[in-house]
Amino acid sequence: MLTRIDHVGIACRDLAVRIAFYESTFGLTVASMEVNEAQGVKEAMLHVANGPAGSSYIQLLEPLGPNTPVGKFLERRGEGVHHVGYGVANITAALAAIGASGVRLIDERPRHGSMGASIAFLHPADIGGVLTELVQAPDRESSG
Amino acid sequence: MLTRIDHVGIACRDLAVRIAFYESTFGLTVASMEVNEAQGVKEAMLHVANGPAGSSYIQLLEPLGPNTPVGKFLERRGEGVHHVGYGVANITAALAAIGASGVRLIDERPRHGSMGASIAFLHPADIGGVLTELVQAPDRESSG
Repeated sequence: MLTRIDHVGIACRDLAVRIAFYESTFGLTVASMEVNEAQGVKEAMLHVANGPAGSSYIQLLEPLGPNTPVGKFLERRGEGVHHVGYGVANITAALAAIGASGVRLIDERPRHGSMGASIAFLHPADIGGVLTELVQAPDRESSG
Repeated sequence: MLTRIDHVGIACRDLAVRIAFYESTFGLTVASMEVNEAQGVKEAMLHVANGPAGSSYIQLLEPLGPNTPVGKFLERRGEGVHHVGYGVANITAALAAIGASGVRLIDERPRHGSMGASIAFLHPADIGGVLTELVQAPDRESSG
C-alpha cells in the first residue's frame, strides 16, 4: 500500500532559519514554499531524493500562530519531528482499507496538501504515537 | 550530500505488536530483525520502497531495558518517532563536512548499524530537535 516515504514533517519556530540550516549543512534545496491557511502553517519542501514512485522531501513547518496544530505541538513538545508522510497510489482506496482495519481517520476524505498532492492524516493514538499522513502525488490522481 | 530518507526510527513498547500492526494495516514486510546490545535495542526494519540510492524503511525500536537511550525516550516522550536516518554515499566525508559546519557529532566515527550499514548520529540540539542519523549502506562502503 505504501509506495515511499514521501516526507518527514518537522516543526520549527523560524522557517527561514531552519531552511538555511538544511541548505548549508546538508546541501538540500527548496522545491516548494506554501502558506496553508487551513492548517495554520507556512511550510517548505526540501528535496532529498527521487524514486520510482515519486520524490522524498523534508517538510519544514512553522505555525502561523500559537492556536494552530503545529503551534500547539511546539508549545507541548518543542521543535522536532511532527509527522511522517507516506506515498500511496490511490488515497481513497487506502483510506477505506485503513479505516476498515480500525485506525481512526483524522481526514475521512482527502484534502489539499503540499505541491498539489491529495493528503489525509491518520490518528497517532492508533499508530503507536506517530501522526501519519497519506500522500497521493498530483500526477497519480485518477480522474474518477 | 543526502541521497535518500533511509529510514524513520520509531520507538515502541512491544516490537512484535508494532510489527504486526504495520504488516496488517499498511502491508509492509520485515526485511531484517536484529538485537543491538551496544544500543540496548531490538529492532526491525520494515521495507517501504526501493530507490536509485538504496531502500527506505520504517525502523521499529524496542528498548532492552529502561536505562537505554530508547528506554529513556519512551519514559520521557512515549511511543513515537525517535530519529530520522538519511543515506549518504560516504559517511566519513559527510561527518567531516557536517562537523566542520558546527553541528556536534554524537559519533565522531561511523559504527555498526542495522543491516550491515555504517552509521553515525548527529546531535538533535543542533538540528532543530531532530535526532539525525547518517547511513552508508554496506554495498556503498569504500575499501579505503
